[in-house]
Amino acid sequence: MSDNLQLNPEGKLKHFLTIEGLNKSLLQEILDTAESFIGINDQQIKKVPLLRGKTIVNLFFENSTRTRTTFELAAKRLSADVLSMSISTSSTSKGESLLDTIRNLEAMFVDMFVVRHAISGAAHFIAQHTAPHISVINAGDGQHAHPTQAMLDMFTIRQIKKDFSRLRVAIIGDILHSRVARSEIQALNMLGVAEVRVIAPKTLLPAHVESLGVTVSHNLTEGLADIDVIIMLRLQKERMSSALLPSESEYFKCFGLTEDTLKNAKPDAIVMHPGPINRGVEIDSKVADGPQSVILKQVSNGIAIRMAIMAMAMQKQGSL
Amino acid sequence: MSDNLQLNPEGKLKHFLTIEGLNKSLLQEILDTAESFIGINDQQIKKVPLLRGKTIVNLFFENSTRTRTTFELAAKRLSADVLSMSISTSSTSKGESLLDTIRNLEAMFVDMFVVRHAISGAAHFIAQHTAPHISVINAGDGQHAHPTQAMLDMFTIRQIKKDFSRLRVAIIGDILHSRVARSEIQALNMLGVAEVRVIAPKTLLPAHVESLGVTVSHNLTEGLADIDVIIMLRLQKERMSSALLPSESEYFKCFGLTEDTLKNAKPDAIVMHPGPINRGVEIDSKVADGPQSVILKQVSNGIAIRMAIMAMAMQKQGSL
Amino acid sequence: MSDNLQLNPEGKLKHFLTIEGLNKSLLQEILDTAESFIGINDQQIKKVPLLRGKTIVNLFFENSTRTRTTFELAAKRLSADVLSMSISTSSTSKGESLLDTIRNLEAMFVDMFVVRHAISGAAHFIAQHTAPHISVINAGDGQHAHPTQAMLDMFTIRQIKKDFSRLRVAIIGDILHSRVARSEIQALNMLGVAEVRVIAPKTLLPAHVESLGVTVSHNLTEGLADIDVIIMLRLQKERMSSALLPSESEYFKCFGLTEDTLKNAKPDAIVMHPGPINRGVEIDSKVADGPQSVILKQVSNGIAIRMAIMAMAMQKQGSL
Repeated sequence: MSDNLQLNPEGKLKHFLTIEGLNKSLLQEILDTAESFIGINDQQIKKVPLLRGKTIVNLFFENSTRTRTTFELAAKRLSADVLSMSISTSSTSKGESLLDTIRNLEAMFVDMFVVRHAISGAAHFIAQHTAPHISVINAGDGQHAHPTQAMLDMFTIRQIKKDFSRLRVAIIGDILHSRVARSEIQALNMLGVAEVRVIAPKTLLPAHVESLGVTVSHNLTEGLADIDVIIMLRLQKERMSSALLPSESEYFKCFGLTEDTLKNAKPDAIVMHPGPINRGVEIDSKVADGPQSVILKQVSNGIAIRMAIMAMAMQKQGSL
Repeated sequence: MSDNLQLNPEGKLKHFLTIEGLNKSLLQEILDTAESFIGINDQQIKKVPLLRGKTIVNLFFENSTRTRTTFELAAKRLSADVLSMSISTSSTSKGESLLDTIRNLEAMFVDMFVVRHAISGAAHFIAQHTAPHISVINAGDGQHAHPTQAMLDMFTIRQIKKDFSRLRVAIIGDILHSRVARSEIQALNMLGVAEVRVIAPKTLLPAHVESLGVTVSHNLTEGLADIDVIIMLRLQKERMSSALLPSESEYFKCFGLTEDTLKNAKPDAIVMHPGPINRGVEIDSKVADGPQSVILKQVSNGIAIRMAIMAMAMQKQGSL
Repeated sequence: MSDNLQLNPEGKLKHFLTIEGLNKSLLQEILDTAESFIGINDQQIKKVPLLRGKTIVNLFFENSTRTRTTFELAAKRLSADVLSMSISTSSTSKGESLLDTIRNLEAMFVDMFVVRHAISGAAHFIAQHTAPHISVINAGDGQHAHPTQAMLDMFTIRQIKKDFSRLRVAIIGDILHSRVARSEIQALNMLGVAEVRVIAPKTLLPAHVESLGVTVSHNLTEGLADIDVIIMLRLQKERMSSALLPSESEYFKCFGLTEDTLKNAKPDAIVMHPGPINRGVEIDSKVADGPQSVILKQVSNGIAIRMAIMAMAMQKQGSL
C-alpha cells in the first residue's frame, strides 16, 4: 500500500492514513500544532474559526461512539460543519456502492472524510479514489492502522516525559489484532525512542514481530523492567471465545496490569490505554484510576490532536 | 438523597436535579429568567450568544424525542454546541461503565450533561461524581423527578393566573408512577398555592400520599370542584396490562377529562398535560384542543424554561 | 388536491409541494435564485447568513440518506439550525398522532418542515394543517411528487442545454411508480420543452399516460431517436418480485441504457439519473460514468436548488 498519497508535492500533510511513510519532522509538527490547540479547550469560548464554512463528513462504517465523538467535537471547535453518517457495511457491501457514496458526497462539495471501517485499507482506498480537493483522515481501519490514536499517545508521552530518546515503552496485550499497536510501534520508532517492547502471549503476537522494530517478552513481570511508558491494549471479548486464549481470569493472572505487577516498571512509569478499558481483564481498576494512569489525559489530548491533524490537512491543500 | 449539591456555596444553581431542596426565590428567579427568553423565540433571529463555545451533551439513556428536541433547540438558541448521545442502558449496565462514559466526556471538556435515565437517582449519581466544572440537568429519572417539566408548568400557570397564592390545582391520573407529578407537587407547594389536590383511583396513588402535601379525591366530578388549574397525567399503556386498572375504556369513563366533567371545575380553569397525550384515554380530544387547553403553550414555554435553567447553571459556576 | 396553498396572495412561494399549480415564471425564478447560490459551494467559506437563527426540521418518515443529507447541507450553508428527525411511521400510524407531532414542533417555534413520507399527499396534509408562519417543503411523498428533484434536474438541463424550447426529453423506466417522473413531466412541460417522451414496458406505465402530456414508446432503440436529454429512473428491486417484470437481466436487455443503445439518441445527448443508480439494472456503468453522464452534476446542483427553494419560501412569508 503506497503512503505517498498522504503528502502533497511539498511534503505537507494532505491525507492522514497511517504513520508509515511519514517522517519525524512531520510528526513533530503535528505535536506542536496540537500543543497550540490545547489551550482552546480551557477557554470560555472553546472555538476557533479556522475551518468555518468547511464541511467534514464522519463516515463511520464501524460503530465507535468515543472516536466519533472526539472527531465531532474537534471539528466543531474548529467551527466546521459536521455531517455524521453511520453506514452499515451491508448496504455498501459492493466496492462499487462505496465509491458511489463517496462520489455523491464529493459532489455535495464536502471537504474532508473521517473514515472508520472494519476492512484494513478502506481509508487508503477512499483517499486513492476521492477528488483532489478532499482530505481523508483514517479513524481506524480493520487491523491495519489507527494513526490519530497513536499521535495522541505520542502527545501525551511528550507532555509528561519531554524527550523520546531515552524512553523504553512497553505495549502489552493483543498485538496480533491491534491497529493501535501497529501505529504506536511505527510512531515510537519514528520519534526515536530507545526501545519498544511488546509483552504478550505467543498466540497474540504476529509472526516475525521483531521485524516491526520491537523487542519481545512473554512474561509481564520480567518484561516491565526499566519501562518508562506502559501502553495497555484492550482485549476484545471475541478473542476469548476463540482458541487463542484459555480464559479471562487466566489472562488477567498472566498479563493483567495490577498494582503489584506495575511495581516492576520504573517508579515514575505512566500507564496508558486507548479505551474503552475492560476493568479486571487487561487492567485492574486500582491501576486504571491510580496515580500513574494518564488514561483520561489521553482522551483530552485526543481533541487537540484531531484538531491539529484536521487543520493541517486542510491547510496543506491550500484551502486555508 | 442530598440535594444540596444543586446549589453552590452562594446558593446559586449549579445542577438542576429536583425541586426538592430548592427554595421559592430560586424558583421565581428561574421563572423570571425564562420570561426574558420568551421574546427570543419570536424574533427573526432566534438566537442569543450566551453559551457560544460551550458543549452541552444530551445523555439520553431513555428514549424521548420530545424532551430531547426541546433541550437541543434550547441549547442551539443559546448558541451552544450540542452533542446528542442515545445510549442503550444495556451497554452501560454496570455502574462502572456509566462512570467511565462520564469520565471520558469530562475529559473532552464538555460543560453540561442533560441526563434522561430510567433509573431514579441517575442524574444525582452523575452530579455527585462528575468534575466540578460540569453542570447536570435532570431531564427525567425513573419515577423520581422531572423538574424542568414542573418549571415549565409553573411558568405557564403564572403566565395565565399571575398569582399562585389563591390557586387550587388538581393533578389527575397515575400519581404513583409519575415523576412529573412528584416534581409538580413540590414546585406548587414551594410557590405557595392554596391547595394541591390529587385525583386518582387508589391503585394509582402512593401510600401516605397526603404526606406529600396534597389533598386526595377518588372521584373526578367531586374532585374538580373549585379547581383553577388541571394537570392531566399521561396514562402509560403498560399500566393497563398490569392488575392496577380494569381497562382503558373503564378508566376513561371514571377519570378521563371530557367537556362534561370539565364543567365541574371553575369556568376559567386551564387544562394542562405534559404530553404526549393519549386521546380518548386520559383526555378527550375536544378538551385537549379546546379553549381551556394550554397544552401547546406548555411546549412553547418549555424552550424558554430550559434556556433559563441552562444559562443559570452555567452562570453560577462562574463560567459565564 | 389543491395546490394554491403553495403560493401566498402575491403569488410568491410559501410551500413547495408539487410542480402542479405553479407557473413558468416561478420555476424560472427558482432556477435563477439557485444560479446565484452555485458559487457559494466553491468558496472558501461555503456559508451565507440568510437563514441564521431559523430552525428547519427534517421530518423523514421514510429513510433517505442522500436526500436528507443534501437538505441538511443546504440548510447549514444558509446558516440555519437543523433538527433531523427520523420517525418510523408505525409510531405515528394514526393521523391524529402525526398532527400532534406537527403541533408540538410548531409550538417550539420552528420555521420550516422538510417532509419525506411514504404516503402520497403527506406533505400537502401537513401544509394544510400547519401554522401560518411555517413553510413546508416536499422531499418526496409516496408515488405523488418529488419536486425538488425535478427542479434540480431542470437546473442541470438549463445549465447545459440553455434553451428548453427545442429539447426532446426521454424519461425511461418505471413511470408507473415514480414520483420523480410525475414531477419531471410537469416541470418539463411547464418550461415548454418540445417533447417529453416516456419509454417503458406497458406494465410500468400508468393508464392513459398520454394525458400527462407525453408521447409514448415501448422500444428503447426507437424511442431514443432525436432525444437531447435522457432521464433514467431507478428500478426498485421490489418491482422484480412482483408480476410486473420478467427478470433483472431481461429488463436490462430491453430497457437498460448501454453505450450501444445510447448511440440512438443525439450525439450530444446528456444522461441523467436521480440516484442511487442500480449499475447493470437500468444503466450500464460505462454510461453512468461516461462522458455524456451528468449524474454527479445533478447531485451538486441539488444543494443550490434546495438552498434556493428554502430561501424563497422563507422570504415570501415576510420573515426575511
